[in-house]
Amino acid sequence: MINKLVEKIKKTEAPIVVGLDPMMKFIPEHITKKAFSECGETLEGAAEAIFAYNKEIIDNIYDLIPAVKPQIAMYEQFGIPGLVAFKKTVDYCKEKDLVVIGDIKRGDIGSTSEAYAVGHLGKVLVGSKSYYGFDEDFVTVNPYLGSDGVNPFIKVCKEENKGIFVLVKTSNPSSGEFQDQKLSEKDNRPLYEIVGEQVAKWGEDCMGDDYSYVGAVVGATYPEMGKILRKVMPKSYILVPGYGAQGGKGADLVHFFNEDGLGAIVNSSRGIIAAYQQEKYSSFSPVDFAKASRAAVIDMREDIKGALS
Amino acid sequence: MINKLVEKIKKTEAPIVVGLDPMMKFIPEHITKKAFSECGETLEGAAEAIFAYNKEIIDNIYDLIPAVKPQIAMYEQFGIPGLVAFKKTVDYCKEKDLVVIGDIKRGDIGSTSEAYAVGHLGKVLVGSKSYYGFDEDFVTVNPYLGSDGVNPFIKVCKEENKGIFVLVKTSNPSSGEFQDQKLSEKDNRPLYEIVGEQVAKWGEDCMGDDYSYVGAVVGATYPEMGKILRKVMPKSYILVPGYGAQGGKGADLVHFFNEDGLGAIVNSSRGIIAAYQQEKYSSFSPVDFAKASRAAVIDMREDIKGALS
Repeated sequence: MINKLVEKIKKTEAPIVVGLDPMMKFIPEHITKKAFSECGETLEGAAEAIFAYNKEIIDNIYDLIPAVKPQIAMYEQFGIPGLVAFKKTVDYCKEKDLVVIGDIKRGDIGSTSEAYAVGHLGKVLVGSKSYYGFDEDFVTVNPYLGSDGVNPFIKVCKEENKGIFVLVKTSNPSSGEFQDQKLSEKDNRPLYEIVGEQVAKWGEDCMGDDYSYVGAVVGATYPEMGKILRKVMPKSYILVPGYGAQGGKGADLVHFFNEDGLGAIVNSSRGIIAAYQQEKYSSFSPVDFAKASRAAVIDMREDIKGALS
Repeated sequence: MINKLVEKIKKTEAPIVVGLDPMMKFIPEHITKKAFSECGETLEGAAEAIFAYNKEIIDNIYDLIPAVKPQIAMYEQFGIPGLVAFKKTVDYCKEKDLVVIGDIKRGDIGSTSEAYAVGHLGKVLVGSKSYYGFDEDFVTVNPYLGSDGVNPFIKVCKEENKGIFVLVKTSNPSSGEFQDQKLSEKDNRPLYEIVGEQVAKWGEDCMGDDYSYVGAVVGATYPEMGKILRKVMPKSYILVPGYGAQGGKGADLVHFFNEDGLGAIVNSSRGIIAAYQQEKYSSFSPVDFAKASRAAVIDMREDIKGALS
């Protein structure tokens, strides 16, 4: 799957992943109105609105981008109906041949991590049959529990030819609280660097053609750290959140890429999916929200191209 | 909710939480057979079997224990039908007046953590109405992303009078890989201790009568660390996994409790729910599996009582 991701990035010339993180306040009124008139102001109504919103965005941008990253929390908050909308979104994106990165940030001890891995990337056994639960192509994984929390994901990745992105340095303001702590037995290097080293190790024995199935998450908001981490994990794809709304700029992104122009994929969520609410795209009416998203994808692609050239 | 948990622990004289972490291999054949005959060997069939299994266990032990801890991964692996069984389990346990700790180990950046908090502990807004998604009483939270990942949970806890347990030192063998790293700017104390300090701080401004709404997870498999963490977080309830199947013994548990005999709640999962598969309870036939669970709860209660007296 890492090979497919790299292929699609080359083909689209867009190292971009669009974060499908719908919030009710992003969804244009004509969509919520229709959903509520059909299902009422219920969890089902919210889920209906979310999927209709996602679908129109995907229909308008799928040819420009290699991948999407639905954030499961934004669906999970609407309980079971929300998770049904998550699953429908995953399936619809796969129909459109997009690579789907489930942003689930799961991580637990052995047998429990195995259950998450099986449920999101692999097949679960029921009697004599087996089924895919959510069936994303990649998922994000939290490393706090160490190797026996991550290895079950790697095992399933090998079986299913899928991949993971491990949280190394996250984009949020307080990410340094624990991640930046200097480790006395590691030459005072910060925790995130040691996690990065471990990502490189985990990735060694599950390589695609040029990059590993085991990637990393490093926030665009910390470009200097990205520079170091790029070297620590040369064969790991870096998923870079924090571009746009969180403050990361195109110029900051250079450090996350390798000299081959590959090695990183940059996420934008509300910057794309709620583009029509921004001053810059105010010429698009709410009815044309997905066209605004398309324009925002093109602008982002050019911004990154400019920064890398 | 922390007050209710403490009250129920006092009343039952059992600082025990039963981990409802069903695996297909635990479920007696007569239950899976019935479920598969009704729903086929499908995800729905697995979910049906899981709920029937849980229900019979709960019916046989609810009067002895204060709380249950369903591990969501074990349900999530069966996709949407699995999560429906999770929700049914949560609801059924609450009907039986058990405190429900959702073992979800979520954690993300600001607005995303807020979505998890709202979905699992609070109410989500849909138009002019609001709904509970999963509605557990407590959830477990991963601290790797720092304060702005945890604060949204605390906010919802205050609004809803609920609580969280933050992962501090987990019970698994490789938990030390990152959690035990010594921090040079913190007098060479290990990361888990600094996380524990932060748990105490987070908990300060959301206190119940004697204990905080913000608790911690510390594995029974590391009793010496538990001893230190008990002092670092005097007002935090400690949720202690790793008793029984993972190797933690009653005698190891003393350090996790305060002098008032409170302050800790010990989890056992397969040791209780799959008791009938153990040599010790082999006098119970698979049909009487839930009676074996009841016997195992009583033995565990006495084991802990003995250790604490």
